[in-house]
Amino acid sequence: MPSCVLAYSGGLDTSVILGWLQDEGYDVHCVYVDVGQPCEDREAIMQKAHDCGAKSARLVDVQEELCRDFAFPVLQWQARYEGIYLLGTSIARPLISKVCLQVAREVGAEAYAHGATGKGNDQCRFQLAAEALDPAVKIIAPWRIPAFREKFPGRTEMIDYCEQKGIPVKASIAKPYSSDENCLHISYEAGKLEELTVDGYEVVDFGMTVSPQEAPDQPEQITVGFESGVPVSVDGEKLSAFEIVQVLNERAGRNGVGRIDIIENRFVGMKSRGVYEAPGMTVLYETHRLLEQLTVDRDLAHLRDRIAPEVAEMVYYGLWYTAKFDALLAFIEEAQKPVTGEVTVNLYKGNILASSRSSPLSLYDEEIASMEGGGSYDQTDAEGFLRIVGLPSRVQGRINPRDY
Amino acid sequence: MPSCVLAYSGGLDTSVILGWLQDEGYDVHCVYVDVGQPCEDREAIMQKAHDCGAKSARLVDVQEELCRDFAFPVLQWQARYEGIYLLGTSIARPLISKVCLQVAREVGAEAYAHGATGKGNDQCRFQLAAEALDPAVKIIAPWRIPAFREKFPGRTEMIDYCEQKGIPVKASIAKPYSSDENCLHISYEAGKLEELTVDGYEVVDFGMTVSPQEAPDQPEQITVGFESGVPVSVDGEKLSAFEIVQVLNERAGRNGVGRIDIIENRFVGMKSRGVYEAPGMTVLYETHRLLEQLTVDRDLAHLRDRIAPEVAEMVYYGLWYTAKFDALLAFIEEAQKPVTGEVTVNLYKGNILASSRSSPLSLYDEEIASMEGGGSYDQTDAEGFLRIVGLPSRVQGRINPRDY
Amino acid sequence: MPSCVLAYSGGLDTSVILGWLQDEGYDVHCVYVDVGQPCEDREAIMQKAHDCGAKSARLVDVQEELCRDFAFPVLQWQARYEGIYLLGTSIARPLISKVCLQVAREVGAEAYAHGATGKGNDQCRFQLAAEALDPAVKIIAPWRIPAFREKFPGRTEMIDYCEQKGIPVKASIAKPYSSDENCLHISYEAGKLEELTVDGYEVVDFGMTVSPQEAPDQPEQITVGFESGVPVSVDGEKLSAFEIVQVLNERAGRNGVGRIDIIENRFVGMKSRGVYEAPGMTVLYETHRLLEQLTVDRDLAHLRDRIAPEVAEMVYYGLWYTAKFDALLAFIEEAQKPVTGEVTVNLYKGNILASSRSSPLSLYDEEIASMEGGGSYDQTDAEGFLRIVGLPSRVQGRINPRDY
Amino acid sequence: MPSCVLAYSGGLDTSVILGWLQDEGYDVHCVYVDVGQPCEDREAIMQKAHDCGAKSARLVDVQEELCRDFAFPVLQWQARYEGIYLLGTSIARPLISKVCLQVAREVGAEAYAHGATGKGNDQCRFQLAAEALDPAVKIIAPWRIPAFREKFPGRTEMIDYCEQKGIPVKASIAKPYSSDENCLHISYEAGKLEELTVDGYEVVDFGMTVSPQEAPDQPEQITVGFESGVPVSVDGEKLSAFEIVQVLNERAGRNGVGRIDIIENRFVGMKSRGVYEAPGMTVLYETHRLLEQLTVDRDLAHLRDRIAPEVAEMVYYGLWYTAKFDALLAFIEEAQKPVTGEVTVNLYKGNILASSRSSPLSLYDEEIASMEGGGSYDQTDAEGFLRIVGLPSRVQGRINPRDY
Repeated sequence: MPSCVLAYSGGLDTSVILGWLQDEGYDVHCVYVDVGQPCEDREAIMQKAHDCGAKSARLVDVQEELCRDFAFPVLQWQARYEGIYLLGTSIARPLISKVCLQVAREVGAEAYAHGATGKGNDQCRFQLAAEALDPAVKIIAPWRIPAFREKFPGRTEMIDYCEQKGIPVKASIAKPYSSDENCLHISYEAGKLEELTVDGYEVVDFGMTVSPQEAPDQPEQITVGFESGVPVSVDGEKLSAFEIVQVLNERAGRNGVGRIDIIENRFVGMKSRGVYEAPGMTVLYETHRLLEQLTVDRDLAHLRDRIAPEVAEMVYYGLWYTAKFDALLAFIEEAQKPVTGEVTVNLYKGNILASSRSSPLSLYDEEIASMEGGGSYDQTDAEGFLRIVGLPSRVQGRINPRDY
Repeated sequence: MPSCVLAYSGGLDTSVILGWLQDEGYDVHCVYVDVGQPCEDREAIMQKAHDCGAKSARLVDVQEELCRDFAFPVLQWQARYEGIYLLGTSIARPLISKVCLQVAREVGAEAYAHGATGKGNDQCRFQLAAEALDPAVKIIAPWRIPAFREKFPGRTEMIDYCEQKGIPVKASIAKPYSSDENCLHISYEAGKLEELTVDGYEVVDFGMTVSPQEAPDQPEQITVGFESGVPVSVDGEKLSAFEIVQVLNERAGRNGVGRIDIIENRFVGMKSRGVYEAPGMTVLYETHRLLEQLTVDRDLAHLRDRIAPEVAEMVYYGLWYTAKFDALLAFIEEAQKPVTGEVTVNLYKGNILASSRSSPLSLYDEEIASMEGGGSYDQTDAEGFLRIVGLPSRVQGRINPRDY
Repeated sequence: MPSCVLAYSGGLDTSVILGWLQDEGYDVHCVYVDVGQPCEDREAIMQKAHDCGAKSARLVDVQEELCRDFAFPVLQWQARYEGIYLLGTSIARPLISKVCLQVAREVGAEAYAHGATGKGNDQCRFQLAAEALDPAVKIIAPWRIPAFREKFPGRTEMIDYCEQKGIPVKASIAKPYSSDENCLHISYEAGKLEELTVDGYEVVDFGMTVSPQEAPDQPEQITVGFESGVPVSVDGEKLSAFEIVQVLNERAGRNGVGRIDIIENRFVGMKSRGVYEAPGMTVLYETHRLLEQLTVDRDLAHLRDRIAPEVAEMVYYGLWYTAKFDALLAFIEEAQKPVTGEVTVNLYKGNILASSRSSPLSLYDEEIASMEGGGSYDQTDAEGFLRIVGLPSRVQGRINPRDY
Repeated sequence: MPSCVLAYSGGLDTSVILGWLQDEGYDVHCVYVDVGQPCEDREAIMQKAHDCGAKSARLVDVQEELCRDFAFPVLQWQARYEGIYLLGTSIARPLISKVCLQVAREVGAEAYAHGATGKGNDQCRFQLAAEALDPAVKIIAPWRIPAFREKFPGRTEMIDYCEQKGIPVKASIAKPYSSDENCLHISYEAGKLEELTVDGYEVVDFGMTVSPQEAPDQPEQITVGFESGVPVSVDGEKLSAFEIVQVLNERAGRNGVGRIDIIENRFVGMKSRGVYEAPGMTVLYETHRLLEQLTVDRDLAHLRDRIAPEVAEMVYYGLWYTAKFDALLAFIEEAQKPVTGEVTVNLYKGNILASSRSSPLSLYDEEIASMEGGGSYDQTDAEGFLRIVGLPSRVQGRINPRDY
């Protein structure tokens, strides 16, 4: 009998898929990869998987790894998809696939099933990561299979199916959109949000942040410490990667920081609208950049900024486990070596306002920068500098004069 | 007798330079290029120039041109220096040089003098623009001349000199930093701001914005209209480029929008700290991007975003009148053709919150984007798409397997 | 009855497809887009199409347009796929689709069929161009249809089918590879060439070039003239785009110029081996670059060179009719304005050796370049230039000293 | 008494500088950094330095290091300045500065003098490398000092000076250009070459290569082996980096391989003309790329190719010891890991013709690439692939139809 691992959440979709995979003749091993999705009772989910016929079910908590090995390198690249989106969902997918394939190898499963639709980005991230790790793995994405879609055209048919199979279905409050949550962020899309005249900030029932309006009237100051580009402390207290994200989520969230509403371009080609909140990561991106300003060489920073959109694209598209991404990780690791120090900002009603920054490796040199005399910089040097920088334009101005 | 145009502001520095140039044997033609710098009495400035011995003095108002031909193409590139700075000062410099050289040609002057120091970026922008337009022009930057610096080691000596020459000096209130203002923004730097432990937002006496804390407790909604990437209206009213910037400065400024505090890398190599406020342009960058999300092709947008840091670098360094910049302008003009439509945002205590957007050329297709069935997108296609996108990684996974 | 245009060559494959499309119920309109493929008797091909049941058949000669509007802009980009391949086949495909769709519109056909396989790049180029021009067009690629592949597993079955249908089949001499020829180049791939230990230069029976060994023992000198980046003359004689390519093919071909043997990465993900000859275009690329060296600004040239690999990728993948490519065309048109002048090279047994070059817009200034004294360049300026260029490294050397 | 290291060649220029530095009051330590420049008698040069008053003189042979640590990483980047120049001189300069500064540290010298002019690139490379290693070092570039230039306006005055000082001057045969040679290449510039109508290949007396015309009538086959992107063997024999370059120089040189004649853009802004020969490195670039075609992932290769022009620019400008270059080295080291295998080419009268290639890590998969049936690639997948890749263009084609 063929066997399959299933990226299992305990929700309606993956419960139906768990049943359907058995109908299709698979032994199913459920893997709940805990990336911080909301979950009241983890044991109950495991029990439910067993009750529904899973050959095995396990929960693997990877929140620490998610923050440390996935979110932080992306942070170091200052990678924002289309200039804005912090990639909270994108980052988690390759890790989920990795864990599922580890289980597949252990239990001897040849297939890997997930509940992502055929229209979105997550199918790409799940599959491309999985196939890179195990080129022979058989991916089962039921929502891309016409027969499955015909069998389950809507929620009603799925609930009916669960009832037939004795799969317990929890009544969930219908929301006018769908969401995805992990310890890094929550995304909201579909439903009412597909109408662009709808104000996303008014429609969404945010889970990690208050609105700027609801936030306190007093700024809250916070200090983040970094070592070689890695966040290591908050307000002077050393914390693990996951702990830092948790603390910052709490503190930035209560100050209305980290919401965005964008129309983005999916890897599968269409434009879609997403509302996101990522309070902690937003503070990390901002404080990290403030510290980079102090410690990273200009020309390296400018190159990094030119490559960053491509890194964001790769993460968003799901191209994590690729030779190209490996080389980009080597680049950024080297580039981040001097990014050590502390940054203090004020959080206030959605704003992150720089207050102070310091680094033992600061390249900022007050004496040189000063407009006043003194320092090792000789203003006379600028004469020669500009005469030479301007030489090509002067030659061109002679040969191809501009109108003015 | 040789003659010279002087980019003249009527302030202490250029008044001293006006005298000194005459001492050096020049006929001096003063040009006050009005880019929106603060000025109580423009006629008085002209009179002062004449009184101080200028051969001629004139004021040229270029605020409309500054917004339309300089700021807006940079906006279309979404160019931010080092990811953040909207280039308000950088943009104005080439235009000031162009106007001064027009005057130089008219009056037959062979030299062009300005009051920028030898440590900053502005000398680069003035000079590189000027030499590109007239390769034979002689640039006089007194602050780079050791004899001038020795003669005027400080403010006291400058005031003494003015008194000797009968140049009226207005007592100005000393500020703990220096600033540069035009219709696009105000920059603050030097003085107290050179100490990084100083909170810039607390020290600076901002001129265009209130602080987020001081802003109203109610959001203010505003709608900006664009045609082919060019801002054309506010709240439905057609306005000129300069008018749009003015209106948005007023409305965004009163809502605490558009302040930043950064450490940036100057073209002459050192890091320096700057605090900026650019309320109107900040709203334009944000609304423009929101509209681009709706109307610009994904792959074009991604390429633009990869080139944008380089465009920002060029503007910041002063490389406006170059063959490279010409080609980049041709690129963006073509790229912006479909960026037509309206964007509504809420301004609230420093936040710009997207509310709605629309375009007659919208590429957003609700039917395709929808996660629900229907639309012309066939989810089954994703099977083939991902099998082919993933092929290189599968081959590599066979040849160079990854540990997992 | 539905109708279809077919990109028809008169060869075995498209003859079978012509029959099969009729079996499938289509009225078929054959379009022979003449891009310079080898063809003894164009009228016979038209007759054959009619004899085989085509509703209409026409030949459209687009060689001039192919050279002028497709090959030359790519040349201006100096775009070589993977650094080497001059894109001779890639360039022709969008134009073929354009012509076929023009016919489709004229005859009212809703479908567009081509004979490219499902493993290669050409299907991508045909289809992406076609769908960009007419998003509603139905693409029929029989080789991607399992039923078709089953019906025609090999050449034998295709010949049998033709005999049944009374389609005349010309006995062709079997070659140990397949080839594609147009006026720009010939490509060779598949068959024996798939074995990497096989020496491509020994196996292929080249059609446009002799081998370097067979070429004359005396160099042949040739002068190419350009106006704004467009080739306009050979040895002083004004010629059309197609004429220039023809003349250069002849002259470079007889001197063994323009062969390559590469392993390239297809858009559909696999590596494949290709042998190419493009004698005329090789001379154009070389002479164009030699002229650019004289006339194009350094920083513009460096940017162009960084973008060129991406342009080559787009052309190779088939992304010609895209908003991104439009913007890139606008860029290069502006960038090429000063590329006017003449370049003389010696062709000798595969080598293209620069002999001389001249331009009315030359930016080369012997006086400045000279290492001797004189000229308007002041060597003392280099002091200031280097002190400022080196400032960031000096600061870093103090803060993060390197071992040496 | 202050002391100075001098990058000393024993030729006229540095001999004069050695005397002049003593006139200026320096103790001078001569360092002959042996990068393979032509030299009949190294001991005589050391003796001459001592005779001329040098406090110390030493010869340091760095040819192995030059090839291994400088040339090969640049090779791995496939970096060619302006698409063509293999950077043979540029690469050597930072290493020369490093060795000189090592000596400076040892002998306690605070200054570093070199004989490069103020118009060329070498001054940039020497100085930027030196200041990055020791930010406090005082650079003495006599040719940039007006007093020095006045004292030595021409060769005659330099010879007179040597005679006064008793510095032996060897009569050298005047060549109509100047040249720079090391183990990687020889460059020729200035003199007659400054006239663009002069055919460089006819004027230059090449030192490492015969002309294609003079080369043998039979091809010579050669096989180069690489491990992780590093050349390790020729014709199966393991050799050191320097040995490989030597062997290939000999074998490629006798086959007329590796000459170029270009107009390039100097870092100091002017265009200049250079003729180069680099036979061994040319073969390495070509064989390396042929092996990369087999072993490097497509998307990684394409990114590398987009960054390579910038790497070449950095090497050419002299920005070797920079944070940006460090990060780029980390990138390429990771990227080159799979570039292991052997490539066989035929050298024939200036041509390098690929013959065969093999790698244990080959990503070329004959079965997949084959146009015939079979293999793990499913042609039907291309349907979905192209429908999704083309989706953005189809949507645009509906909203913004193109004329056709």
